[in-house]
Amino acid sequence: MSRLPNIFYAQSGGMTAVINATAAAVALTARNHPERIGKVYAGENGIMGALEEAMVDLSRESDAALNALRYTPGGAFGSSRFALGTPASHPQHYARIIDVFRAHNIRWFLYNGGGGSAGTSMHIANAARQAGYPLAVIHLPKTVDNDLAQTDFSPGFGSVAKYTAVSTQEAALDVASMCRTSTQVFVMEVMGRHAGWIAASSALAQQDGTGAPHIILFPEIAFNEARFLAAVERAVASDGYCVVVTAEGLAVNNPMVDTESVIATTGHGKDKLNVHTGKAAPYLAALVGQRLGFRCHFAVSDYLQRSARHIASAVDVEAAWRVGETAIDMALAGADQVMVSLQRKGVRKVSWGVVPVPLPKVIGKEVCLPRNFIRRDGFGITDACRNYLLPLIQGEDYPPYHQGLPKPAMLKKIAVKKKLPLFLMP
Amino acid sequence: MSRLPNIFYAQSGGMTAVINATAAAVALTARNHPERIGKVYAGENGIMGALEEAMVDLSRESDAALNALRYTPGGAFGSSRFALGTPASHPQHYARIIDVFRAHNIRWFLYNGGGGSAGTSMHIANAARQAGYPLAVIHLPKTVDNDLAQTDFSPGFGSVAKYTAVSTQEAALDVASMCRTSTQVFVMEVMGRHAGWIAASSALAQQDGTGAPHIILFPEIAFNEARFLAAVERAVASDGYCVVVTAEGLAVNNPMVDTESVIATTGHGKDKLNVHTGKAAPYLAALVGQRLGFRCHFAVSDYLQRSARHIASAVDVEAAWRVGETAIDMALAGADQVMVSLQRKGVRKVSWGVVPVPLPKVIGKEVCLPRNFIRRDGFGITDACRNYLLPLIQGEDYPPYHQGLPKPAMLKKIAVKKKLPLFLMP
Repeated sequence: MSRLPNIFYAQSGGMTAVINATAAAVALTARNHPERIGKVYAGENGIMGALEEAMVDLSRESDAALNALRYTPGGAFGSSRFALGTPASHPQHYARIIDVFRAHNIRWFLYNGGGGSAGTSMHIANAARQAGYPLAVIHLPKTVDNDLAQTDFSPGFGSVAKYTAVSTQEAALDVASMCRTSTQVFVMEVMGRHAGWIAASSALAQQDGTGAPHIILFPEIAFNEARFLAAVERAVASDGYCVVVTAEGLAVNNPMVDTESVIATTGHGKDKLNVHTGKAAPYLAALVGQRLGFRCHFAVSDYLQRSARHIASAVDVEAAWRVGETAIDMALAGADQVMVSLQRKGVRKVSWGVVPVPLPKVIGKEVCLPRNFIRRDGFGITDACRNYLLPLIQGEDYPPYHQGLPKPAMLKKIAVKKKLPLFLMP
Repeated sequence: MSRLPNIFYAQSGGMTAVINATAAAVALTARNHPERIGKVYAGENGIMGALEEAMVDLSRESDAALNALRYTPGGAFGSSRFALGTPASHPQHYARIIDVFRAHNIRWFLYNGGGGSAGTSMHIANAARQAGYPLAVIHLPKTVDNDLAQTDFSPGFGSVAKYTAVSTQEAALDVASMCRTSTQVFVMEVMGRHAGWIAASSALAQQDGTGAPHIILFPEIAFNEARFLAAVERAVASDGYCVVVTAEGLAVNNPMVDTESVIATTGHGKDKLNVHTGKAAPYLAALVGQRLGFRCHFAVSDYLQRSARHIASAVDVEAAWRVGETAIDMALAGADQVMVSLQRKGVRKVSWGVVPVPLPKVIGKEVCLPRNFIRRDGFGITDACRNYLLPLIQGEDYPPYHQGLPKPAMLKKIAVKKKLPLFLMP
């Protein structure tokens, strides 16, 4: 059996349309280095796979199956929202992970996630160092929320941005045709509890910066009911209809909003309003209907938006792939405790360089929309924001179809043989 | 000025991703007959255009602009939900329409809509006959609900079916990767107040007839809370997660359901539960969360589903086009008081013939899922249903993109000069 060092790769947090492209690139690029890399193991259910010694051996998958991952949304090996804690609070978790890595000669930990998993990556790096176990840790960015620091954007975001812009354009054409005698206001709720990047991307559907979406509600801007209703009225007066795109994290928990009315309308307590998807759109639709008497429809795109591989951005897919590919190059170059970062280059034709940035620079930061990306009135985006967003949704990268449906990757998922006793979660 | 007879074409009711393909086919096919057909006028806001003498002259549009309609969702000329009434109850409406048609030498009325507009078409035909005005009436089917009688399917349905199947497959891959430590149940609400065709189409996402969606809720089947919750539990026990697709018309208004609990959960009165989009999914998600303790997410696809031209079914687009094309052929062949109907042919390779059917056979019928299309347990579809649905989602027909977004048709929309006094709506 090969004594070459192995790689542990895991997916973390909410999924995206393109995270499996990163996984495929990791596995396929590692194959180009049989003299230095043993096997790539994928953790089942993210970091749970390390705790439970539950891993899939990617060396047993064909090139074709791995390439098909490029077109498959979700997380092929399962993700996790399990909170490991810190090495101080939960030393047994970290000790177990090091045990599993040692037992399987895993010398590289490649963690594909957002801000939380960047922190976890650092904890694992520290625990390994303390245990005297040689482990290089590389964080691979992924999040639809686009709130990671030190990277131009996060793979996954470009595709949800494209889905949101396309869906907004399409739904707006529908509402525009209905508004004379039926629906006048359409509200679409997108993800984003604290950061309004996805909501902002809906503005790309506007022709010349005007028209639908007429109003965008950002978590970064305090929701003001009176100003919102006035803006809806203005849009209907001018265009006959109004398209509203709201982030799920509608900023209602602030002194400017009539919280009692929100609670009465939704039937939910104040604490629930800012924390869970599917509340903002029904609330706004009911508010508009009750106060202005307009007929409203609403959509909640929820998981549809982040899994919509069928309308992924080619730029985003390419970025996800390059992050995986470059992680292997960095691993072989001796990188440790870094995140694989995308750096925007070029003026006429936008392109991205891929460079390592030290993990500590990434951790504990949540990048929201800067104020100069939000229009002065708080209901739209600026040219600076548009110039940032537009390159990210360029190009289509359609999956192959079979019998009318996308053909997901079919992996064998052969389990790595366990060598350690069962770990009972404390 | 030409004294050739003109065509009045109008769009009615809820829009679809492909109704503009029918419009384009009408206008372009009419151009092939300059010796017999004068101009094609499109009613602005559907039948309102006839009442208000507000029409767009399609002869002023380029072939390229009309061809671009093939890729543009919504209703390019506006639709209407205005209820004309009957010739008996509202004779002034019908008299006005005949006046407008006479003033503009309109001899063909092509109405593109669902069941309601089939009835209106017949009323207008009768009113014209009574007035001694020579008018041929042809109904062009369109509805995402697929509830029209006397046609194999209605253009618009194939595309929403494809969108629903693709979105279900994608979201299921996402939930499957999250279920170990996060979301276990995902509920997607689709359109369909009385007919479960769209909900049924989600089943095409299943591999070999099993897996996600684990549960489909049809308006045709009484909702039984206990059986539903038991089915959710079974799915989570067996697969780790459960995907539920519900029609908006969740059949809760029946003796089998605990209506009080529904009202308590949603905060809506009983009368609202069965009639408006966006109620069923939040209700079911809350129910599952409260009763079973599973973490739930829900999506309401609302207008997104019916305007999703980016993932339209090629079969559906082709059908929409052929309906428009054939309507012109039928008009020239002297057809009157007919609907353009799609008739399924072939065994190995499914294809459709396009034939006229008498309008009276269409009117007053709402075709729901036949019982033999619904699985015995009420939570899925049968092979007969699958064999019916599968041909309708075949093929992709992607719109052209510009700067990362679909490029909608840009019409000049030159208004037909008004000849009559203003009509004041009574």
